[in-house]
Amino acid sequence: MAARETRKVTISVIADLAGVSVPTVSRVINGRSDVAPQTRQRVEELLSRHGYRRRPPSMRASSGLVDLVFNDLDSPWAVEIIRGVEDVAHGAGVGTVVSAIHRQNTSAEQWLDGMRRRGTEGVIFVTSMVEAPLQAELRRLDVPVVIVDADGLPAQEAPTIGAANWAGGLRATEYLIGLGHRRIGFIAGPPQLMCSRARMDGYRAALEAAGIAFDEALVCPGDFYHEAGFVGGGRLLGLADPPTAIFASSDQMALGVYEAVRRRGLRIPDDISVVGFDDLPEVRWCSPPLTTVRQPLSEMGMLAARTVLRLAKGEKVESPRVELATELVIRDSAAPAA
Amino acid sequence: MAARETRKVTISVIADLAGVSVPTVSRVINGRSDVAPQTRQRVEELLSRHGYRRRPPSMRASSGLVDLVFNDLDSPWAVEIIRGVEDVAHGAGVGTVVSAIHRQNTSAEQWLDGMRRRGTEGVIFVTSMVEAPLQAELRRLDVPVVIVDADGLPAQEAPTIGAANWAGGLRATEYLIGLGHRRIGFIAGPPQLMCSRARMDGYRAALEAAGIAFDEALVCPGDFYHEAGFVGGGRLLGLADPPTAIFASSDQMALGVYEAVRRRGLRIPDDISVVGFDDLPEVRWCSPPLTTVRQPLSEMGMLAARTVLRLAKGEKVESPRVELATELVIRDSAAPAA
Repeated sequence: MAARETRKVTISVIADLAGVSVPTVSRVINGRSDVAPQTRQRVEELLSRHGYRRRPPSMRASSGLVDLVFNDLDSPWAVEIIRGVEDVAHGAGVGTVVSAIHRQNTSAEQWLDGMRRRGTEGVIFVTSMVEAPLQAELRRLDVPVVIVDADGLPAQEAPTIGAANWAGGLRATEYLIGLGHRRIGFIAGPPQLMCSRARMDGYRAALEAAGIAFDEALVCPGDFYHEAGFVGGGRLLGLADPPTAIFASSDQMALGVYEAVRRRGLRIPDDISVVGFDDLPEVRWCSPPLTTVRQPLSEMGMLAARTVLRLAKGEKVESPRVELATELVIRDSAAPAA
Repeated sequence: MAARETRKVTISVIADLAGVSVPTVSRVINGRSDVAPQTRQRVEELLSRHGYRRRPPSMRASSGLVDLVFNDLDSPWAVEIIRGVEDVAHGAGVGTVVSAIHRQNTSAEQWLDGMRRRGTEGVIFVTSMVEAPLQAELRRLDVPVVIVDADGLPAQEAPTIGAANWAGGLRATEYLIGLGHRRIGFIAGPPQLMCSRARMDGYRAALEAAGIAFDEALVCPGDFYHEAGFVGGGRLLGLADPPTAIFASSDQMALGVYEAVRRRGLRIPDDISVVGFDDLPEVRWCSPPLTTVRQPLSEMGMLAARTVLRLAKGEKVESPRVELATELVIRDSAAPAA
């Protein structure tokens, strides 16, 4: 009975029952803001009671678009992820709509308005901070969501694609130990992010496995940005017994260490070894080219696109979280300990 | 049923059914004469039977999308331009579809197919090499086109937005002359691009204005990529009478010069001054931070988006080509001549 009603109810029936016009019901269904709150509530109740299906399944299939949503497009990661998503989507004949919502609700609302009008096969968020109301609205619209999680925050409702941060931290530190370093400085990421903790735990695990005592004095706080590497690198270089190597847990911080080293008239890797984390495209061109842990950002974008297109077809995904492997890319910024 | 088919059928489907290429179907649709009569008849029958709509009138206005088309997304420019376009489009409630066509006709056709299905308000190409058949097809579809012209090739049919390359080359060289440099090396861009010539002409004009003879031996060929800067920088440093400053006409080449300097155990700016061109985001983090000529890439993207949205509304643009100003950004890579 309920199923039959679902099929039968139309917008004009709902409009009659609510005592409003058909366009008003449409506006509520489309989530537009230009409807009085009481009217919206009355219409929502009727839609729900009569089991109105908001989204004809063909809308999604016919949009030919996936959405790729960033907080900001100034991250050096952004273009890598765009490239991966576009590559897979293009191959599937689907366009990639790139948006930046700047952590602002008004901007997210505006994106949502446009997305409702044109439709989407699914949304890829490149942030682990997707606001709950936004998630709820996408669930209501039955739009598949995948999160590319450069940060590593757990407990998302949507399938999440990340990188093996702990293993990367371990590998970088093992490499420096293998070069004979015993005093290895570490510059951390934001403590509230899981990926920061995972990278640092990898660093500690490698020290422990090599029988090297963890030394709090060799660890500097950071936020993944250049300035933190510059400040932390300067502090480590100024210690009475400075480290012979520094593992900066982001490439931007590693470049900050480069500048701190240069300002002291020292040289990399002659005077101090530096290893980063990310493998941003530009670090192969820095001087000396940076040895770093590669996060497979474009591959993460590719997998996110494949996953969201599978979800759009009604397929299931096997695992709520996938971590792609990280790998150490050895260039010229680390040398054997003197 | 027929109506649904109308919406679905594409040129490539018709091409498959007719056993001809997509361009051939396009030629039939465009009423061109260079198609064999039997082929034309077969294609026309299929177009008619499948209800192909030659010119969906509502397509443009209702799409809520602009297209931003790159050759490749691995250029360090890409994200800057995306950011500018997205910012303006987002503000206008329009989504930005980012595509890479990899200089391949098949890839361009695939993009075009998708674009026809979902519609677009207009297309921004970030390349000066838009193939003639592609331009013709967009004209036929009555889709506005704007070209963001990082290369500076003239003679486009569409409005073009570029940067003041000559003035930038002049300013960078004047700055080095002002620091007391007389022997200033130059690493050129690809000779077939107008922007390369404009930057080099700016360099020559500044030398001439200062009464410094142009010296062919101080000019190295290049292609804007890192390796060319590394090779050219190495050659200039190896001269019997090496320059005291090098103006690399792209940032990537400037970073190549950095590496050539480092390999010789020299220091920037103590031993040699270096100036670049572009102001990519990463060069403020290189060591030392690079003094360079800023191309306003995100502003070029913003203007391109505003222009294409104006054209979509049927407005006219005043000038077929707009050049935005370049400016010298002074950081730490150039010092007074010894």
